[in-house]
Amino acid sequence: MASRNGPAPATPLDAEIESFFDSAPPLKDSAGIIKKLKEFIEFNSTPHGKGSPRRVVCVTSGGTTVPLEQRCVRFIDNFSSGNRGATSTEYFIKAGYAVIFLYRRGSFQPYCQSLPEDPLLECFECSDDSTIQVHQQHTEAVKRAIRDHHAAVAGGQLLKLPFTTIFEYLQMLQSIAMSMRDLGSHAVFYLAAAVSDFYVPWESMAEHKIQSASGPLDMRLVQVPKMLSALKKEWAPMAFCISFKLETDSKILLEKAEMAREKYRMHMVVANELSTRKEEVTVVTGNERILVCRDKTQADSDVEEPLIELIVSRHSAYVNDSNL
Amino acid sequence: MASRNGPAPATPLDAEIESFFDSAPPLKDSAGIIKKLKEFIEFNSTPHGKGSPRRVVCVTSGGTTVPLEQRCVRFIDNFSSGNRGATSTEYFIKAGYAVIFLYRRGSFQPYCQSLPEDPLLECFECSDDSTIQVHQQHTEAVKRAIRDHHAAVAGGQLLKLPFTTIFEYLQMLQSIAMSMRDLGSHAVFYLAAAVSDFYVPWESMAEHKIQSASGPLDMRLVQVPKMLSALKKEWAPMAFCISFKLETDSKILLEKAEMAREKYRMHMVVANELSTRKEEVTVVTGNERILVCRDKTQADSDVEEPLIELIVSRHSAYVNDSNL
Repeated sequence: MASRNGPAPATPLDAEIESFFDSAPPLKDSAGIIKKLKEFIEFNSTPHGKGSPRRVVCVTSGGTTVPLEQRCVRFIDNFSSGNRGATSTEYFIKAGYAVIFLYRRGSFQPYCQSLPEDPLLECFECSDDSTIQVHQQHTEAVKRAIRDHHAAVAGGQLLKLPFTTIFEYLQMLQSIAMSMRDLGSHAVFYLAAAVSDFYVPWESMAEHKIQSASGPLDMRLVQVPKMLSALKKEWAPMAFCISFKLETDSKILLEKAEMAREKYRMHMVVANELSTRKEEVTVVTGNERILVCRDKTQADSDVEEPLIELIVSRHSAYVNDSNL
Repeated sequence: MASRNGPAPATPLDAEIESFFDSAPPLKDSAGIIKKLKEFIEFNSTPHGKGSPRRVVCVTSGGTTVPLEQRCVRFIDNFSSGNRGATSTEYFIKAGYAVIFLYRRGSFQPYCQSLPEDPLLECFECSDDSTIQVHQQHTEAVKRAIRDHHAAVAGGQLLKLPFTTIFEYLQMLQSIAMSMRDLGSHAVFYLAAAVSDFYVPWESMAEHKIQSASGPLDMRLVQVPKMLSALKKEWAPMAFCISFKLETDSKILLEKAEMAREKYRMHMVVANELSTRKEEVTVVTGNERILVCRDKTQADSDVEEPLIELIVSRHSAYVNDSNL
């Protein structure tokens, strides 16, 4: 693992990226977040039990929002339940990784996927003597959620950081990446969040609520700068990087995934089509297209289990290669 | 109360409204929803205990979304935590009303406001012998949420119906209103949801995900037809109606609230400004502007308590007037 060199140097980002960060509303409690990251990474970089430090993966999950007004009433959102990121987090933890879970507020949480929509109100009841009890049918799911989730957090293997807007997401991703920089090839980015492609720059945003009195609404959104380049080039150049490509049109999916892999120099791009994404994905690497399917002979299997298995094995090979 | 006359007649809506409903994707389980409504209203229209049937209020809560693509990846959302609607629901129930709670999935639920963001993971722990326990500090809040919520639902005083899109919201509001029609002046609409002003008509929507390759994105959204007119004129003409006006600019707030009241013939419009909405609101009626404030001498007071008290008293007067 690369030695610790203190904070990464201030880096020259493209003008476009720089202007995005300059104009973004400042992240709340940025210092607190950086402190948590530092402690988490330090804890996991020191040997545990059997001797070797943990690898660290940043899993991003859920969709980002784009405010349309500064005092935000309306915003554009990207659909994503966060199921992929939450489930993958469980498998990374099982494989011994420490996970920084950068998730959209309200999206799926690790260990909670088999619970109903509103677990508190649907799983519990209050008996006559005012004790709280779990409905029989949900007992196992509730226990698993509480026990495994707490074990991961309390054991220092899971750090959860919530975001809502594209501004929060990208500022936090930058802080995480720069904190993980010194982990070198032991760092992984698993970028499953659905990140907005378009945004309204903060300075050009209406201050007040857009008025609806006068006919149709015309909006011009500009492209969000592609931060994957900055992540790879500047923030954490040695990290093993996996990004995601979601399309609804299967005809253009693989081509777009290949293009993204090449353009941003990702190690892997996971291509998923909206309608089949829970059954199968195609992993695009430099010279392969690997179809990963869930085990259809098992009712409760998922595609994340074989996917994370593949990623862990490729990451191990990458770590070994980097050490040569 | 008006006598039951069977289902309301098919009514001629404006062309604009008709075209909105015609082009909307069909509501899932529409028949199931109408059945639930029918049973709930019937149950509450028959005398209970002390003899008089319950009044019924439809409380709408949370924001609606506007899909930007048919196979929805991106959508425009309206910010609204649903706190107002959820808290108001509690006070309506306390005042003896039956509540149809039409809420955005994931928004605040009645009796749950004093819980942390993720109650299951933050309030509970699993002890060594694998029993689930509530953390001491959250015991009262959790008990209250589970007990009072269950009591309201089990007692047939609370019917919860979730929505996500503007299409679902307006179709469900129409079904609710037409189901409540025969309640006459005993029906109340408390329209606290943040409803999208603009939408992309379903037929003109991109089928697939909008591609980001080629420069900025220009979008044209058209106005959502004002359904309040249809509600008042066609769906439930005798109902007592309260709508909400939220602005970030206090200078135009009251004027806009007055205009809305007059245009849609609401009985009351609750005017709130984004930054002070938890402290005070102004209720605009035909000839008054009533400032309603929370009791600042009490730390845990809210503005909904005096607001619902005011509404209940005005509604009672309205019922009495209608019976003359």
